Amino acid sequence: MEFKRRDIISIKDFTRKEIDYILETAETMEPLAKTSSNILHGKMLATLFFEPSTRTRLSFEAAMHKLGGSAIGFAEPGMASVKKGENLADTIRVVENYADIIALRHPLEGAARLAAEFAQIPIINAGSGAEEHPTQALLDLYTILKEKDQIDGLNIALTGDLRYGRTVHSLAYALSLYDVKLHLISPELLQMRREVLDTVKAKIQVVEKKGLDGILSEIDVLYMTRIQKERFADMAEYAKVKGAYKIDCNVLNNVKKDLVIMHPLPRIDEIANEVDATPHARYFQQVWNGIVMRMALLALIMGATG
Amino acid sequence: MEFKRRDIISIKDFTRKEIDYILETAETMEPLAKTSSNILHGKMLATLFFEPSTRTRLSFEAAMHKLGGSAIGFAEPGMASVKKGENLADTIRVVENYADIIALRHPLEGAARLAAEFAQIPIINAGSGAEEHPTQALLDLYTILKEKDQIDGLNIALTGDLRYGRTVHSLAYALSLYDVKLHLISPELLQMRREVLDTVKAKIQVVEKKGLDGILSEIDVLYMTRIQKERFADMAEYAKVKGAYKIDCNVLNNVKKDLVIMHPLPRIDEIANEVDATPHARYFQQVWNGIVMRMALLALIMGATG
Amino acid sequence: MEFKRRDIISIKDFTRKEIDYILETAETMEPLAKTSSNILHGKMLATLFFEPSTRTRLSFEAAMHKLGGSAIGFAEPGMASVKKGENLADTIRVVENYADIIALRHPLEGAARLAAEFAQIPIINAGSGAEEHPTQALLDLYTILKEKDQIDGLNIALTGDLRYGRTVHSLAYALSLYDVKLHLISPELLQMRREVLDTVKAKIQVVEKKGLDGILSEIDVLYMTRIQKERFADMAEYAKVKGAYKIDCNVLNNVKKDLVIMHPLPRIDEIANEVDATPHARYFQQVWNGIVMRMALLALIMGATG
Repeated sequence: MEFKRRDIISIKDFTRKEIDYILETAETMEPLAKTSSNILHGKMLATLFFEPSTRTRLSFEAAMHKLGGSAIGFAEPGMASVKKGENLADTIRVVENYADIIALRHPLEGAARLAAEFAQIPIINAGSGAEEHPTQALLDLYTILKEKDQIDGLNIALTGDLRYGRTVHSLAYALSLYDVKLHLISPELLQMRREVLDTVKAKIQVVEKKGLDGILSEIDVLYMTRIQKERFADMAEYAKVKGAYKIDCNVLNNVKKDLVIMHPLPRIDEIANEVDATPHARYFQQVWNGIVMRMALLALIMGATG
Repeated sequence: MEFKRRDIISIKDFTRKEIDYILETAETMEPLAKTSSNILHGKMLATLFFEPSTRTRLSFEAAMHKLGGSAIGFAEPGMASVKKGENLADTIRVVENYADIIALRHPLEGAARLAAEFAQIPIINAGSGAEEHPTQALLDLYTILKEKDQIDGLNIALTGDLRYGRTVHSLAYALSLYDVKLHLISPELLQMRREVLDTVKAKIQVVEKKGLDGILSEIDVLYMTRIQKERFADMAEYAKVKGAYKIDCNVLNNVKKDLVIMHPLPRIDEIANEVDATPHARYFQQVWNGIVMRMALLALIMGATG
Repeated sequence: MEFKRRDIISIKDFTRKEIDYILETAETMEPLAKTSSNILHGKMLATLFFEPSTRTRLSFEAAMHKLGGSAIGFAEPGMASVKKGENLADTIRVVENYADIIALRHPLEGAARLAAEFAQIPIINAGSGAEEHPTQALLDLYTILKEKDQIDGLNIALTGDLRYGRTVHSLAYALSLYDVKLHLISPELLQMRREVLDTVKAKIQVVEKKGLDGILSEIDVLYMTRIQKERFADMAEYAKVKGAYKIDCNVLNNVKKDLVIMHPLPRIDEIANEVDATPHARYFQQVWNGIVMRMALLALIMGATG
């Protein structure tokens, strides 16, 4: 399987076989993540974040450093040259001279794909618009695999904002390559985008619901997301929805003993702090898995594995 | 003495014996600071600055690099995830996955202590509210020691804003472990905080005064601080105070030959530029000592000395 | 020739012999730029950008990393301590403790020169006011040399904003050391500054024109710059000027086969995208040459060549 110099734009660009290979590679990165290595010594990652996302940027930089490489970049809302009117294609053709690989976060859908078309070095989509966040989906898959030993056969619930959350879009696509039953739990206003739903439904069993009532007991993986106030015109509606999608220890009374709760973070209050201490909580482990997964991707793309 | 994996939150957490050991360790770092070393190769420092402080951030990063380690972090007034409503405990539990040690600057008192309670990796308080700035106090002690060979027996004056300046709070606590006579020189409005004063007075001789007149000739170390306009409701009062706390060559006519003048910087005009060229000025040397001290602390906490 | 510990403030500080030596050194950096090296291992560059310029900052940082060194710095419009009222001389005397070399970008003319007077470590002017941008001029010369094998004998046109563009000021000074014919093409409002013009005219043949008509066919190197709307009080005048200084494939019908088109970037629309695919376009190669040139300068100043 050839990953060298490949772009990571959409989870849809990968076959199950390829994803399984990426997951296996991530596992081999665990010992390096705990210490450090020199397999990307002398290589440079540029993190171009046109939209703030401190944690994703730090995750990529930490991954690169753990592989012995260096990182440069910017985290400003707009790069100085962009403020002067430069287009993305020019920015990419400039920055590719500074680096061996680019991680791009951009508010516009399609930005990462456009960048990849112009760049002569590999582009990793670190989140583009509300569309996709493939490295988050891969680290989520990796977390599920680590916790459950296999992904096939699981009941997985994606909960909260399924409309604007790029994370759940990429994750739903990724899960559709596995033999899972997908529960999509969201208020009507925040239902899964039609185009994602159609693609996923064509491949696996999907159940849509407006609440967690009555289904929690059969779920293996509960994937929570943040519901943003700004999505609601009616604050009364927001308050109602917000309350209905909150997980606390009370809600967890009747769940599987090995239920795994995940969240891409940051959370506001959709998971009560008291849940952190339960064996279900895996959202901070996801952060660690994110480093490991990004190390795997960087190593694969630079042709530096095995 | 065990420093490995220890947090550096408050100078009050350390005994004199421990501080003396830190000062000795700093001395051993001087040759490494002039060149570089690899004793923290593969280790990562995260600098989380929720409040801007370019010089303290750069000092920590430079110290980490000189030890062969790497640094990531942010210097934004608010990390993206925090703007989205994330609390500090969550931010810390995320970032601890990226790094081996965290240097935290935060506008709220108690923030560093809270962070240390949640973190599984060591936290260094890089300034919290108006409360404490322990690494500055340690570098100040180190500066005094380097200049005077010993701290015991000295007449030391802390001058200017003793109320809101976290630096002088930590330094006063630290000096109270030594046999010094402490002169606290400030306008009434900016007198040393009661809780600091009580603690220090219980241990060493303290003299409070409103001006430098008549005492400068007996002082060994004159520690100046910036008086901020914002502290005054009455601008006439500010103008008067500001003038009274200004050091120029004229003021230095009748001082000890080996008087040492220190300042945590930045200064505005409380020390005239003409003083820079006198043998008394040590405020730029303090900056260098800051790197050396932070190297010592990073090495001690990571268990990488001797 | 001694470059060790030398400041790079103005292109006027260098003789032709010295510039030729810098250009030769850059050539030797090409293989290192493609891989990496350790010749500045343990050395630290501080990038102090008081004015945003992401690409110049990243170029310096990438150059330093490729030489095995580290970089710290800030890219905020104002360093925290400067907001508190610190002057540049103090900032420099603080930062010189953190680093072995400083790259300074500042909105005020003369800032780099002032910094160099106070600093005990070398200062590189990374752009000061509208005055000078010496490293850009050097990378431009290097680009011309690489493309044309020699600079002497060429017809070179500087086009666009010759009044406020620091890049063309430094480049004009640099070119005046070579036997070139310089064509200065600009609208009346944006004509080359008198002091630059006088100096350059005293040394080489200079032709001033208001448009490219009729001269393009004899030009070897066409150096384009951005014309900023803000320079014009009259928008109709701006629209007219903007149209007259736009290069597209149609304009290129009657040019030399080996015409080289350069631009310091970012461009807005003064060079049409269709030109990118022509053999004339060299503006993205300039970016690469910028890394190579800055590697050469860093290595020379640190005494780490040959």
